[in-house]
Amino acid sequence: MTEPFEPAPSLDSPEEKARYDRGAAVLNAVDGGSAPAVMEALADIAPDLAHHIVAFGFGDIYARAGLDPKQRQLVTLGILTALGGCEPQLEVHVRTSLNVGLTPTEIVEALTHAAGYCGFPKALNAIFTAKKVFAARGLLPVGGETRTD
Amino acid sequence: MTEPFEPAPSLDSPEEKARYDRGAAVLNAVDGGSAPAVMEALADIAPDLAHHIVAFGFGDIYARAGLDPKQRQLVTLGILTALGGCEPQLEVHVRTSLNVGLTPTEIVEALTHAAGYCGFPKALNAIFTAKKVFAARGLLPVGGETRTD
Amino acid sequence: MTEPFEPAPSLDSPEEKARYDRGAAVLNAVDGGSAPAVMEALADIAPDLAHHIVAFGFGDIYARAGLDPKQRQLVTLGILTALGGCEPQLEVHVRTSLNVGLTPTEIVEALTHAAGYCGFPKALNAIFTAKKVFAARGLLPVGGETRTD
Amino acid sequence: MTEPFEPAPSLDSPEEKARYDRGAAVLNAVDGGSAPAVMEALADIAPDLAHHIVAFGFGDIYARAGLDPKQRQLVTLGILTALGGCEPQLEVHVRTSLNVGLTPTEIVEALTHAAGYCGFPKALNAIFTAKKVFAARGLLPVGGETRTD
Amino acid sequence: MTEPFEPAPSLDSPEEKARYDRGAAVLNAVDGGSAPAVMEALADIAPDLAHHIVAFGFGDIYARAGLDPKQRQLVTLGILTALGGCEPQLEVHVRTSLNVGLTPTEIVEALTHAAGYCGFPKALNAIFTAKKVFAARGLLPVGGETRTD
Amino acid sequence: MTEPFEPAPSLDSPEEKARYDRGAAVLNAVDGGSAPAVMEALADIAPDLAHHIVAFGFGDIYARAGLDPKQRQLVTLGILTALGGCEPQLEVHVRTSLNVGLTPTEIVEALTHAAGYCGFPKALNAIFTAKKVFAARGLLPVGGETRTD
Repeated sequence: MTEPFEPAPSLDSPEEKARYDRGAAVLNAVDGGSAPAVMEALADIAPDLAHHIVAFGFGDIYARAGLDPKQRQLVTLGILTALGGCEPQLEVHVRTSLNVGLTPTEIVEALTHAAGYCGFPKALNAIFTAKKVFAARGLLPVGGETRTD
Repeated sequence: MTEPFEPAPSLDSPEEKARYDRGAAVLNAVDGGSAPAVMEALADIAPDLAHHIVAFGFGDIYARAGLDPKQRQLVTLGILTALGGCEPQLEVHVRTSLNVGLTPTEIVEALTHAAGYCGFPKALNAIFTAKKVFAARGLLPVGGETRTD
Repeated sequence: MTEPFEPAPSLDSPEEKARYDRGAAVLNAVDGGSAPAVMEALADIAPDLAHHIVAFGFGDIYARAGLDPKQRQLVTLGILTALGGCEPQLEVHVRTSLNVGLTPTEIVEALTHAAGYCGFPKALNAIFTAKKVFAARGLLPVGGETRTD
Repeated sequence: MTEPFEPAPSLDSPEEKARYDRGAAVLNAVDGGSAPAVMEALADIAPDLAHHIVAFGFGDIYARAGLDPKQRQLVTLGILTALGGCEPQLEVHVRTSLNVGLTPTEIVEALTHAAGYCGFPKALNAIFTAKKVFAARGLLPVGGETRTD
Repeated sequence: MTEPFEPAPSLDSPEEKARYDRGAAVLNAVDGGSAPAVMEALADIAPDLAHHIVAFGFGDIYARAGLDPKQRQLVTLGILTALGGCEPQLEVHVRTSLNVGLTPTEIVEALTHAAGYCGFPKALNAIFTAKKVFAARGLLPVGGETRTD
Repeated sequence: MTEPFEPAPSLDSPEEKARYDRGAAVLNAVDGGSAPAVMEALADIAPDLAHHIVAFGFGDIYARAGLDPKQRQLVTLGILTALGGCEPQLEVHVRTSLNVGLTPTEIVEALTHAAGYCGFPKALNAIFTAKKVFAARGLLPVGGETRTD
């Protein structure tokens, strides 16, 4: 019933290798080192998915003009907070957000802002994920002082 | 492009302290002790979010007439089960539900009811979260007897 | 690889007819007349799904002891508000909520309560769905008076 | 079982009127005129929810320092795209995004970016919502030219 | 803070034109004609998103070996039913499902199966979307006869 | 206000025991042994929910003609990936998918396909859940070789 079509090209072709390399350069530039672990973890189960995350997600999309990395991270923080259940990816993206120049205060502010749009529970999950990253980087307390209501 | 506007008021003002205290009284009354840990965990990253959860979430919303705490918890159990990925918050709210007077049977019934509206997987996640709370409180088995199909 | 198993029983058997009739009695008791249109709309595409909604959803679940219909509707309002995109089902359940004895004020209160847990946008969608039902039943304004901030 | 607590304060008090007025000034500054219709639509069903959206959502949260309105809109566009089913609210926020100074190209870029994080279907829903707003404002085609692949 | 990286390549390059053409051939083969309207609707707002849906979504992913189009449509029907709020995309994919050879009975069965995993409300939304497509194609009643419980 | 209705029947009746047994046979046939742990875990909190998962979910739905187990698993993999936060259930269903005859490659392909429809983060969560199952069964690397981009 369906007309035949050409299968997807080999990801080992020079063209795809070039696409991957281009995306990897973007990922390395913005991520500051946390992505390789994710990519490596995919190596023995879904290396092609890793290829597409890098080649498409970073080479084709993230590298587009129109928004700078800090702006892209604000959108991404909003999405991952709203989706819920994506704490591992949010952890990576909090690191990326720091790396591209968002301050801990801006990140916390974005997640606090989210509370009104997707509710306190998802905002709390996101804040505690950010806390884990900030703690590992010695960035707590955020704002340099702790309020004591 | 945007007209200027006044920034949000300091949360250290007497008015905001009063709003916080009012909400904290509500939270303490219904929660029975599990919330302080959450609030404290926010102290060095997002104390203002903690302020708003208490002042707005409990002082302004939870304390409203129109529904009593048991009714509010039924709505909340439904929401948290449906959202998914909010097990930490659901754990707090199962405790709150017990504290305001819902029985373990009523809580289990609410989560069983949820299965038809948001599917078995999310209902199971919620039930296992409730089980964790019930176990810690010596409330298992629910209903006093175990069926053995 | 899979061992063979017995196919699902015919829904035309006397046992299934009895299960359906039992569920239909529950649905009719609580719904007050809005469900037949949904069931009829399924007749020429998925009559078996209609059967299961009635036999399982109402006969097996809704009719269980442990929560009364008003409590079940509070859970359901919470779930449908949180899921999002289920406005047609929420509309049916706002009608059912009225029919089992929740007041418009209680329904509005449940949806207002939801704002803190799943955010203002989903709460607004739910409120406007309720407004549509209340308008059709001459139940506006809710509370008998309109605030004018 | 629950200790008694003080009910939520009247929203007609001078303090709450002041909170509302403060939030309304923020909302008017950033929204450029689309919010009043939403607020008015709530008047006869949930005026208190309208109060809290304005007083809390805009006066307490949106007006906070830490992120400027353009940054807040990027987070909000991400959240509303990811939640799904919130097209009416997204429509308002595309207008707000334009009003605070995001360009159509930046808005489209944010929604295109979203595709990788929450999938093409939700990104498409968001893009078509933006298209409706842009069309009403004479902002199509975006980018000043139409590609013709 | 971020190292500079190369911007995403022009979509007008011969390489990207070739990627697009390859994806378009896949889309045309499986879609049977409903996609062009979606792609055309993107032309004056997000032509690059249209490019990526075609080049990546169909050329890179859909055309992969490992699953045939009927299997891919079953996965897609499950995803779109579960996401909720994606009725426009589900409508396209019900058409695609028919086109690649799934029968109306199989499609209805997939959506009925979904009820247990994501609840009756989302399953109903999906079924009514399928009904709209089936009605337009003269495929009702499904199964050739209408049950009358 | 609500007319009285007959309560749900005892799950200890011979009819319900027969329904349960029929569902259990289906579950055992397709699941290959991972479900009993879930069912047992429900025994002291929600044995009736366990009954309904087995009797309704497997006896009434899974056992229906129209789709074979491999097709049902493809739909289920799509749903659980899209819902998010259902990793425990996805783990069970990856095992079931293997048991009914889907290959690791087909499962990975389904989850890779999902990336375009619900985004990379949810696809990654699903892939890592599958990896856990495959690792426990000695099924890594998938495809017999590891790509090294």
